Amino acid sequence: MSRWQPDAAGRLQQAALELYAERGYEQTTVAEIAERAGLTERTFFRHFADKREVLFRGSAELQQLMVDAVDAAPASATPMQAIAIGLAGAGAIFDACLRPYSLRRQSVIDANPDLQEREVAKLASLAAALADALRRRGVQDPAAGLTADAGAAVFRVAFEHWVRDDSERDFGWFVHEGIAELRAVAAG
Amino acid sequence: MSRWQPDAAGRLQQAALELYAERGYEQTTVAEIAERAGLTERTFFRHFADKREVLFRGSAELQQLMVDAVDAAPASATPMQAIAIGLAGAGAIFDACLRPYSLRRQSVIDANPDLQEREVAKLASLAAALADALRRRGVQDPAAGLTADAGAAVFRVAFEHWVRDDSERDFGWFVHEGIAELRAVAAG
Repeated sequence: MSRWQPDAAGRLQQAALELYAERGYEQTTVAEIAERAGLTERTFFRHFADKREVLFRGSAELQQLMVDAVDAAPASATPMQAIAIGLAGAGAIFDACLRPYSLRRQSVIDANPDLQEREVAKLASLAAALADALRRRGVQDPAAGLTADAGAAVFRVAFEHWVRDDSERDFGWFVHEGIAELRAVAAG
Repeated sequence: MSRWQPDAAGRLQQAALELYAERGYEQTTVAEIAERAGLTERTFFRHFADKREVLFRGSAELQQLMVDAVDAAPASATPMQAIAIGLAGAGAIFDACLRPYSLRRQSVIDANPDLQEREVAKLASLAAALADALRRRGVQDPAAGLTADAGAAVFRVAFEHWVRDDSERDFGWFVHEGIAELRAVAAG
């Protein structure tokens, strides 16, 4: 999830995003992505399971970053505060290098149901990992699962707004807005 | 999602569930399901897109029932109250006929990542439909999306507890417990 590096995975990701935007995701083959990146199909499959996965490069690391931030939250933090700290923990990467990339990537995903399904699966994986992190903090169920699911919803909404925002507000700002909004709707 | 009827789709669903429980989901073929039901593969594919989908029979109708209940909620209901009414709207079907079936079905799903992915996709579809229902009530974003996502999380948790509960508490009870829990964690 870093700026384009001259590594194979990064070149493949850049080539894929260009081709998906130019020709459409469905019309693009792995062979064409590899060719555009000046690499072989074999190299593609060494890095990515399929042509969907190339758009989710780094998502496991990003998830781990958020989980680590929940684990490191002060013991005095409530479950929802720990989740807020976790989500905001992704902000450093988002704000430093991902805004222009994320916007192009999102427009490809928004145009394709297969990619949306994968995105939904990644969000469910994040929610499950956050729930586990809360359980490690001693939070019981159903509170752990509910807080994590609500946190994943805040993440989704914060990301959606952040990626389309043309001010300089950082990702953490959108997380805190989202948490406040959640509190308001839950109280309603 | 009704009691077993002597219709083709119901027989296929029952046969599939039996075979998945006996042999495992992955080891079961569509040909075997059709044979057990005394029907042809062609008939199977007239009713279901694949062997995953047979476990989600009726989910579209169930979702529509919840959406209709949100649409019919009093104008004075807050967004979260409208969602609670919508979720509880599924209770009539759940309580009348689905508890024993749902428990067997859930143990098949819990054992297979492919099925879990489909379940996550169905839950995302429910959340999207509930968000649209809230927008029809004039709820703005991000409140509409957040409330619907939080509602889907409550649905998931309520269902999980209801399906394993051996008292006579109905689905609506678990929905209201879930909403109360959500309110508590969001306020935390």
